[in-house]
Amino acid sequence: MTQPPVIDETLKNIQPVDRAWLQQAQERLDALTKPRGSLGRLEELAAWYVAVRQDLWPPLARKVVVIFAGDHGVVAEGVSAYPPEVTYQMVTNFLAGGAGINVLARHVGAEVQVVDIGVQHDFEPHPQLHRKKIAPGTRNLAVEPAMTREEALRAIEVGITLARDNIAAGADILATGEMGIANTTPAAALAAVFTGLPVAEVTGRGTGVDLDTYVRKVEVIERALARHTPDPRDPLGVLAQVGGFEIAGLAGLILGAVAARRPVVVDGYIATAGALVAARLAPPVADYLIAAHQSAENGHQAMLAALGLTPLLDLGLRLGEGTGAALGLNLIEAGLKIYKEMATFTEAGVSDKD
Amino acid sequence: MTQPPVIDETLKNIQPVDRAWLQQAQERLDALTKPRGSLGRLEELAAWYVAVRQDLWPPLARKVVVIFAGDHGVVAEGVSAYPPEVTYQMVTNFLAGGAGINVLARHVGAEVQVVDIGVQHDFEPHPQLHRKKIAPGTRNLAVEPAMTREEALRAIEVGITLARDNIAAGADILATGEMGIANTTPAAALAAVFTGLPVAEVTGRGTGVDLDTYVRKVEVIERALARHTPDPRDPLGVLAQVGGFEIAGLAGLILGAVAARRPVVVDGYIATAGALVAARLAPPVADYLIAAHQSAENGHQAMLAALGLTPLLDLGLRLGEGTGAALGLNLIEAGLKIYKEMATFTEAGVSDKD
Repeated sequence: MTQPPVIDETLKNIQPVDRAWLQQAQERLDALTKPRGSLGRLEELAAWYVAVRQDLWPPLARKVVVIFAGDHGVVAEGVSAYPPEVTYQMVTNFLAGGAGINVLARHVGAEVQVVDIGVQHDFEPHPQLHRKKIAPGTRNLAVEPAMTREEALRAIEVGITLARDNIAAGADILATGEMGIANTTPAAALAAVFTGLPVAEVTGRGTGVDLDTYVRKVEVIERALARHTPDPRDPLGVLAQVGGFEIAGLAGLILGAVAARRPVVVDGYIATAGALVAARLAPPVADYLIAAHQSAENGHQAMLAALGLTPLLDLGLRLGEGTGAALGLNLIEAGLKIYKEMATFTEAGVSDKD
Repeated sequence: MTQPPVIDETLKNIQPVDRAWLQQAQERLDALTKPRGSLGRLEELAAWYVAVRQDLWPPLARKVVVIFAGDHGVVAEGVSAYPPEVTYQMVTNFLAGGAGINVLARHVGAEVQVVDIGVQHDFEPHPQLHRKKIAPGTRNLAVEPAMTREEALRAIEVGITLARDNIAAGADILATGEMGIANTTPAAALAAVFTGLPVAEVTGRGTGVDLDTYVRKVEVIERALARHTPDPRDPLGVLAQVGGFEIAGLAGLILGAVAARRPVVVDGYIATAGALVAARLAPPVADYLIAAHQSAENGHQAMLAALGLTPLLDLGLRLGEGTGAALGLNLIEAGLKIYKEMATFTEAGVSDKD
């Protein structure tokens, strides 16, 4: 007898969030010494966290940012402002603690883990590095499918397994990070397929390409979509054709967390593409996600709208790595502390509204 | 020979921020391992902090939220959803650590100080309480000036002195908080005078009054402005006629901090009214301010626009107390840590853009 694939078991366990918990949480929020609803989205975050965890007094101690790193064959088309070796160089920077995400994760008390899921470089073992390489980079999606269907599935399962392992080790909440030179190109392709919008409307300038490169990037994606004719009803197929290893890993991490009823903070443009894949595989996924921020990257808003998510922050961030997600984690924690630590009207002897 | 009033000496020391520091800070930000500008407003916050402090490696250790509390004679007009005793009850709650601002200040590592500048209650001494009462509440601005000119000036000087004392004690940055049942009414009156907009356009529902009360509140303010005919070229006069003790204290705190080149994080609707008074007394003030958030209160945006400030957060907050400012402090700290702690391209051995 063969085991069912990890993904089937995971998808089977994904259920919508039970809204009765939201109401129970709001009852406590309404008893606290403040006008009802006056802490806006902080209250919403607290109620959401309670409902996802199905626990009226949920812990929020261990926060983990998982950064999936992969390379992209499409870099050969000249779609990025940075050379491809920056992917592995930045992984080294993450492991040394010098990148933006390291700074912000320390600031918010989150742990950083890095996953080599498809980097064109051999890394030495490191306590913060998961070596889960499927292949040293995807193929060039402009001329052939980026991954086989089986590779895409394996990459998703890497993500699922990492979610499970982290939750087993006590993670209360996960946040998505990524690194991969040229990865706004597959993310834009996925955005176009899943939103149905024209490529130019969901494609941005990534790390800052010039106008010529931007025009080429849009053309490369249009050509790829014309060649592969991806079918949005087959999310795994779309992912294999025009996605990337780190995006598949992100989708898997989200699926694994959601199946275990753990919340996930979604970072920016790339992470949201991964979230879109996950939500197409299992629609209730979006209930468990917080969109940390509105990225400055063109097209991000359309993906968030497709997921029904309203971003928490709008700070003009476009770095990725999980930097926005780290700030989002901190706001969720602020909301939960409000819920847990504020005095009620009765406790504080404060008169309630007339 | 008489001493010049504290305020004159303070106003004399207020100079615009020297923009050369912004450029120097941006040079370092551009050398860090990220695409240039990709951390958006976090970079802007770091450069701003460097420029305000005139220090390329400025400390940011001691963060202080100063909450000014006062009562308002205009509460007699039935403009608030809460009874006036809530002002002193909430002061007690602040001192006991159970209010929203206490939770968020702990979350971001800030200290909370409370100032009784005009509460209708006698407080026992408490290490976190400054007892600086000018009078037990303002007069009813609907029928007479809320304060005498001299009272308004004394309240401003309380704020200036508290800024000075805190800075002498090592405060790196100050954040504004306030408490005062009915204080959205004087704040709206100040907003109308200083923006020139109709009262209804800058008046909101405060802690959540019903429509009848809202209509009455607008009428009360319109009547007060018709009675006092405040002159926006005389900010102290306007403040005395239609302001409040805590708003005057906030204006003073801002002036005192700015005169010593310390940055101030401005909270929501009430605090922004105080900032408007300060900026009318000394226009360079706005250079030193960060607007923490866009409040849900109608009219806040118009005041921010008058100050030329773009809020960092938009979370539907409308509590006051300094709650939004506490979250803003945390983002400023995040930006400064990015500036100080990220590795440069050279340090990390990462290839820069082609």
